[in-house]
Amino acid sequence: METVLKKSSSGGCGSEVADERPPALVSAVLPAGGTGERMGGSTPKQFCEILGRPLISYTVRALERISWIAHIVVVVSLDNVEIMRSIVKQYGHKRTVIVEGGTSRHRSIFNGLEIFVKNSPIQKPEVVIIHDAVRPFVEKDILFKVVMAAKEHGAAGAIRPLVSTVIASSADGCLDHSLDRAKYRASEMPQAFLFDIIHQAYHQCNDHDLDYGTECLHLALKYSKTNAKLIEGPPDLWKVTYKQDLYAAESLIKESLSQHVCVVTYLEENSVQARFLHETLKNHVKQVKSLSSTLCKDDNHLQHILLGQCYNFICISGTLSGFKESQQLVEALENTNASVLYPIVLILIYLDNLEDLLCSSEMSKLAELAKEVKKKNIFLYGLVMQYQQTDVKLQETADSAAALIMALIRDRNPAFVGQLLVA
Amino acid sequence: METVLKKSSSGGCGSEVADERPPALVSAVLPAGGTGERMGGSTPKQFCEILGRPLISYTVRALERISWIAHIVVVVSLDNVEIMRSIVKQYGHKRTVIVEGGTSRHRSIFNGLEIFVKNSPIQKPEVVIIHDAVRPFVEKDILFKVVMAAKEHGAAGAIRPLVSTVIASSADGCLDHSLDRAKYRASEMPQAFLFDIIHQAYHQCNDHDLDYGTECLHLALKYSKTNAKLIEGPPDLWKVTYKQDLYAAESLIKESLSQHVCVVTYLEENSVQARFLHETLKNHVKQVKSLSSTLCKDDNHLQHILLGQCYNFICISGTLSGFKESQQLVEALENTNASVLYPIVLILIYLDNLEDLLCSSEMSKLAELAKEVKKKNIFLYGLVMQYQQTDVKLQETADSAAALIMALIRDRNPAFVGQLLVA
Repeated sequence: METVLKKSSSGGCGSEVADERPPALVSAVLPAGGTGERMGGSTPKQFCEILGRPLISYTVRALERISWIAHIVVVVSLDNVEIMRSIVKQYGHKRTVIVEGGTSRHRSIFNGLEIFVKNSPIQKPEVVIIHDAVRPFVEKDILFKVVMAAKEHGAAGAIRPLVSTVIASSADGCLDHSLDRAKYRASEMPQAFLFDIIHQAYHQCNDHDLDYGTECLHLALKYSKTNAKLIEGPPDLWKVTYKQDLYAAESLIKESLSQHVCVVTYLEENSVQARFLHETLKNHVKQVKSLSSTLCKDDNHLQHILLGQCYNFICISGTLSGFKESQQLVEALENTNASVLYPIVLILIYLDNLEDLLCSSEMSKLAELAKEVKKKNIFLYGLVMQYQQTDVKLQETADSAAALIMALIRDRNPAFVGQLLVA
Repeated sequence: METVLKKSSSGGCGSEVADERPPALVSAVLPAGGTGERMGGSTPKQFCEILGRPLISYTVRALERISWIAHIVVVVSLDNVEIMRSIVKQYGHKRTVIVEGGTSRHRSIFNGLEIFVKNSPIQKPEVVIIHDAVRPFVEKDILFKVVMAAKEHGAAGAIRPLVSTVIASSADGCLDHSLDRAKYRASEMPQAFLFDIIHQAYHQCNDHDLDYGTECLHLALKYSKTNAKLIEGPPDLWKVTYKQDLYAAESLIKESLSQHVCVVTYLEENSVQARFLHETLKNHVKQVKSLSSTLCKDDNHLQHILLGQCYNFICISGTLSGFKESQQLVEALENTNASVLYPIVLILIYLDNLEDLLCSSEMSKLAELAKEVKKKNIFLYGLVMQYQQTDVKLQETADSAAALIMALIRDRNPAFVGQLLVA
């Protein structure tokens, strides 16, 4: 039994999930051959970018971090094989196999299944998960449930309550009847099957099924006489279909990335400003970690923090020399390579007199460094907190600083890198 | 026939829509009694805020700007009557009537319909629109179509293709059968009815219908033998149901608000920097309007621009005196009262030497004014464009300025107001 590193949260940001594992060899097929016509754009939605990374990479990562999924077979259209290869390479995806798709969803899934049996070095799994490339928020919990249910029942799939009433229309475009919403469910993904059951079902399919069908559970029922077990899934299983779904996915990912903040302090003595800021930040995020200026140069320790889903660093320095120290943190962050998956936000806080700071060469140094590390997907911003005489004023400045920090962390806006904000 | 002011776009930002009108008296009922349990929060979703304004106000506004909708009956639970009253007052909604809802969706709609017949001074409409409080992006086009179809067929409703397959489960939680996705549709809103048809249907309903039913088209069929005409609607009719839907709605509204930019130039002579910026901005937004410094003090002219959905102003000044001039624009904007509905973004661009600017009192004046006008929902930001010797450098600075401007306009982030950014 492996160690539990971290229970992943909704829209989880890449920590490995490695607790319970099903007693079966499991692999996954990820059909990603859609043309995205419903998005109204030319880029198929699975290749649309969120924070600079294609959606499909998020979905692959969601499966990849489950240690008991042996292989992830990504089925893409011939046009996109090269693009998919470069995505796998760029984001360091492991255990993925790229397969060329067919002319329909079912034909693509069929191609994905065939790879396990056709003179392939990839071992045929006992249970196969079928998931959508455009459902990036799939969690370990639901994957585990569908796999266990598939092992028992032969097939299983996630369902959700219907959001709208479903109706049938007559030939003249009028209402024929409406379905009782309580009796029906929306069939979502992931689904899982005993490999032989779904593989055999696909082999028996006729052309009409393969060209016009969309529902794998239906094939298992029709050709393998297997009534799939239905499992209620969480709301974030929804499928990115329209432009607004892409916006929603981006916001969920950004929200998830803004839960944890790591504060590094480069001050010799206890600063009252730093203390106010630290306390105020606690009201805005789930967790505020403290990190000593020594440990933050330690690559292993940093790696551990990043695996704990903390992609936000705040460096507090009282003197202008803090810049040099934080440069070392930037280098250490670069070494971890974590920013390949998500942009890391790094905010340098100057507890200084604004005039002094402006007269120094600090601003141009900040802008220069920011421009450089942006290429590595590290977003660097500056923030001045001026010293205040009274506790009330100190709290006001801390509130203003915390609001700016949260805005920078939540937005992760590359346009603002290198800017010096004033709290 | 009234003048066409502006064809509204998706997520339209409040321009009046006044072209074609149906040959019937039309009013609307907006059930808004939901508890929002699916959002996982305590605030019902129709009262969740987007850019500081409750979602329901966007939906009311979407109906209100259609001049041929006589009254908008908003049905809220007793708990929310006062909140709804204050929303109507704060956002200046006209032609709205607030009605107390029942214990279910159907009972609430019934209450809304009853207001037209129960000793009410509100005239009973020939056609009544029923819409959801949580579908803020309803456009004139689909409203017109359902109303016309209702006049002809007695009932009509918007439909959308199913995104997921719909399935029926057996008693043991396994798949019983799946529906052929091509034969069914999702029933959405708006719907419209001849008033007497739907009113009579509600009168004949039994308690089970009223407590557990959700579909008005079904009632019209069951009790008034009226087969509703089904009309394909656009994708942005979707219902804000989950947290991610609220994020999506916010992004769509922000996107819609960032299409138009108005540039005011306070320069005596033609500045090469201003010209580069103006040209560069054209690549980022649908429309860049120019406005003379004289006209921008004219309230009526400003009002006209705002009605044209332009909520973004960029003031370019070469000397430090530009600040005073832009203060006049702020005052004129305040007079229009347009920022009640959407935050107005105002960016002051300084074509200056950064050091000169920093040594002046400009920065603290900017921060002060920004703090003050933020209360009026005007978001003021500063941006310095330093003079560059070569065309290449000029273009780089213009690109950087345009990127910052677009980020400020798209985010509409209140946390950054009063900040001075450097391009």
